[in-house]
Amino acid sequence: MRPAVRSFELGELIDLLGGELVGERSQRIVQVAPLDQAGPEHLSFLGSDAYRAQLDRSRAGAVVVPAQLEISARTAIRAENPYAYFVRAACLLNPEPAAVPGVHPLACVHPQAKVAASAEVGPFVNIEAGASIGSRTRIGPNSFIGAHASIGDDCNLHRNIAVYAHCVIGARAVINAGAVIGADGFGGAFDEGRWLKMPHIGRVVIGDDVEIGANTTIDRGAMADTVIADGVKLDNQIQIGHNVTIGRNTTVAGCAGIAGSARIGANCVISGAAMITGHLSLADGVIISVGTVVTRSIDKPGRYSGFYPLSEHRAWLRGALSVRRLGEANAPGARRTDTKEDDDNANR
Amino acid sequence: MRPAVRSFELGELIDLLGGELVGERSQRIVQVAPLDQAGPEHLSFLGSDAYRAQLDRSRAGAVVVPAQLEISARTAIRAENPYAYFVRAACLLNPEPAAVPGVHPLACVHPQAKVAASAEVGPFVNIEAGASIGSRTRIGPNSFIGAHASIGDDCNLHRNIAVYAHCVIGARAVINAGAVIGADGFGGAFDEGRWLKMPHIGRVVIGDDVEIGANTTIDRGAMADTVIADGVKLDNQIQIGHNVTIGRNTTVAGCAGIAGSARIGANCVISGAAMITGHLSLADGVIISVGTVVTRSIDKPGRYSGFYPLSEHRAWLRGALSVRRLGEANAPGARRTDTKEDDDNANR
Amino acid sequence: MRPAVRSFELGELIDLLGGELVGERSQRIVQVAPLDQAGPEHLSFLGSDAYRAQLDRSRAGAVVVPAQLEISARTAIRAENPYAYFVRAACLLNPEPAAVPGVHPLACVHPQAKVAASAEVGPFVNIEAGASIGSRTRIGPNSFIGAHASIGDDCNLHRNIAVYAHCVIGARAVINAGAVIGADGFGGAFDEGRWLKMPHIGRVVIGDDVEIGANTTIDRGAMADTVIADGVKLDNQIQIGHNVTIGRNTTVAGCAGIAGSARIGANCVISGAAMITGHLSLADGVIISVGTVVTRSIDKPGRYSGFYPLSEHRAWLRGALSVRRLGEANAPGARRTDTKEDDDNANR
Repeated sequence: MRPAVRSFELGELIDLLGGELVGERSQRIVQVAPLDQAGPEHLSFLGSDAYRAQLDRSRAGAVVVPAQLEISARTAIRAENPYAYFVRAACLLNPEPAAVPGVHPLACVHPQAKVAASAEVGPFVNIEAGASIGSRTRIGPNSFIGAHASIGDDCNLHRNIAVYAHCVIGARAVINAGAVIGADGFGGAFDEGRWLKMPHIGRVVIGDDVEIGANTTIDRGAMADTVIADGVKLDNQIQIGHNVTIGRNTTVAGCAGIAGSARIGANCVISGAAMITGHLSLADGVIISVGTVVTRSIDKPGRYSGFYPLSEHRAWLRGALSVRRLGEANAPGARRTDTKEDDDNANR
Repeated sequence: MRPAVRSFELGELIDLLGGELVGERSQRIVQVAPLDQAGPEHLSFLGSDAYRAQLDRSRAGAVVVPAQLEISARTAIRAENPYAYFVRAACLLNPEPAAVPGVHPLACVHPQAKVAASAEVGPFVNIEAGASIGSRTRIGPNSFIGAHASIGDDCNLHRNIAVYAHCVIGARAVINAGAVIGADGFGGAFDEGRWLKMPHIGRVVIGDDVEIGANTTIDRGAMADTVIADGVKLDNQIQIGHNVTIGRNTTVAGCAGIAGSARIGANCVISGAAMITGHLSLADGVIISVGTVVTRSIDKPGRYSGFYPLSEHRAWLRGALSVRRLGEANAPGARRTDTKEDDDNANR
Repeated sequence: MRPAVRSFELGELIDLLGGELVGERSQRIVQVAPLDQAGPEHLSFLGSDAYRAQLDRSRAGAVVVPAQLEISARTAIRAENPYAYFVRAACLLNPEPAAVPGVHPLACVHPQAKVAASAEVGPFVNIEAGASIGSRTRIGPNSFIGAHASIGDDCNLHRNIAVYAHCVIGARAVINAGAVIGADGFGGAFDEGRWLKMPHIGRVVIGDDVEIGANTTIDRGAMADTVIADGVKLDNQIQIGHNVTIGRNTTVAGCAGIAGSARIGANCVISGAAMITGHLSLADGVIISVGTVVTRSIDKPGRYSGFYPLSEHRAWLRGALSVRRLGEANAPGARRTDTKEDDDNANR
């Protein structure tokens, strides 16, 4: 565990974050911990009654609980949204390091780039002509900010981030290692036996308070911009194609892909490894389950799914054979297939 | 939008690219744009009659249209392949920057590496002994070219590209940030309770005119080479296993994976998130749909699919239960399952 | 093919690795090769009788074969585990380069970092305060080792590896380009219309003899550690969420994902593009097939599958329609759907 940067008395937390204290203001909290691992120096939380038994056994010094919860013989903070309260307390105990103003001597910053005096630029960073870096923003080692790209205030680009030319990133972005923002999208014209690459003149335009996970890629638009709205959270290893738009506060989990020109609404949840094909629209508030392929537009909020259910392998094999025959039966020239080969290859 | 690098009169385009002009040679075009966003200074295109209504409403200064199209009262260029023509015009307006010859003082180039005098090597690049870099090729910042690797003429390695030792890349490659070419492949021998790593002595050999997307990985061969033929286009976040071969002009979309020793034909289309298992063959001209798992060889061109259809979640759940029972029914020791747990977990 | 670093007489191999020699001790071997490509100077191997015909045609100078195999008129080494023997021989012929001790003048190593005198630190590497690098360990160009992170002895971090602060990596790790270890995990609290980011105070703790593929990402724990046990092998482009634990000698193939807080047993095999959802457990010895979504815990070893079988597209379309109707039939407010749209979009 990383040690906390500072500690608090419960009374200080109440003064800063609100909530109703049950117990002593002077009790000191040095870190957060889950109920089953917390000791007397830790703050923990109870998200729902389902964990009530864990609460009873916990050695936590204090626990954030729902506002209406009956508790006794325990130091607690009652809050409307216990998890959010707990996260805020964790942030107070473990603040992000502030930018250390200045440009590292082993960074290459073009004389026509604008870097705020309060920004931090690490070693082996390359910032091209016309780029701008906002106040208190940190550009981690080995990163690249292309010509005329713009990074807002209070951003944290961890390390080895690529922001291609002309892309725009708003305030308070958190971008993890290996993310690539603004590479050309995929596709071109086939002519005379070869593919011609379409030059991409659009940008990636990212709003405020966006998080981007490690090794996630967001392609620039071909002739319009790829747009990520305020508050969007993208996990690791996600692919966002050219000209995609994603609405406010939508979250996308790891390994998901959104193909070119898809329009995703606000407050959507795209689960891990889901794949949204191109040129379709998802309404606000759509939830896509894990591993689901979306091949049609969805105009009503709600949860949508489409992945094959898990079975023991032999049972899957029989079921998959039946499913395949559903399609092959009655078809012109239908032939029976067997799944012997699938069986041989399925876990290669 | 990025501004174009230069502008053209329509007559100049006709002289360079052919096509039949309907209108004035002197009309000036400063950039390309889609029909619905184009203004009088833009060139747009009509790919098919389906967009005829958009054409009628468009303010585009000129439009590339199919050769046989009836048009009136509009400046146009008739071309056999309007989209290819349009892409060529876009390339003339927005040429890739040329290499600025020279090695950056903060690059490490081994004295026994051969870098063409016309090549550009950016800062924080490491080029090892025996590597060679072709004429007019650009090696972007923070890239790595391993010992005895060879990069052809007129390539553009954007930034943070890893080309491991002994790999070969042909002419005119475009490689986006974070691509890794030539890491060892996966697998080994299990012996005495642990995995032994097989040293990989094969290479990755890439032909001419290949594009490789951001964060795509191509493993070197174990005892033979991994081979990517001329004109192949790979999107972002693709994994190509050791000893794979991919034929000419095949395209692979984002998040797809091709496992070790698979042989993919020419002119195939592998859609996004498709997964090809190892040691099988796909004929020329095979199209694999999005999210499809391929576990058997395919010896005839055509389109193949295999992903679960999307439904509202409750409907999916009922269907998935039925599908699972197809496999479990009549099986020795069959037991009924329910999908309660799946329901709980499907969008975690 | 890369040339071998050294050559051996068969007698030397027998002395080093054991096995029973059939033929002359003095025969010289300069490299390994598969049966169908080997010449008289190569060592090859026969893994199973299925390749017996290949053996008979092979020009290999010597072949490692199963201990009980009848052979005649051929130089061979009989071994209990021929493939493991062959891999060991390949390692002797092609040893990994040893560390060249020292810190490159263009690396940034904090004065409070501890780098073993026998370790190699490449150019453009950044090592922060309190980090430690073990004996004979190689830290390749453009890598990053965060504050208080610890890397064991005899590791090979190829290049552009990110190890975030406080993470721990054991001995003999092999980590390929672009891997990111210890970025914050995904998720937070939603409150007052926006997502609050949970600070991640856990670490990633990796045992001995672990391999990590190119562009694979492993998130640090939120309030506990993410733990990868000894001998685990991870392929390329894998995503491991926060608080995951993976048991000894488990292998995970390319493009797989393991969501937060999943607990994977020892000696499991997770095939390519499989997706394990969060907060569930897999027993030791579980095998998950390619492309399978796991949404429930599995408490018995064995093989489990769940992916849609491949068909020609028209057959798939009919089958998928039937499968969808299985879920929609008899449902309140059931409506018939068609798959026209899927058909249009499935290979975009």
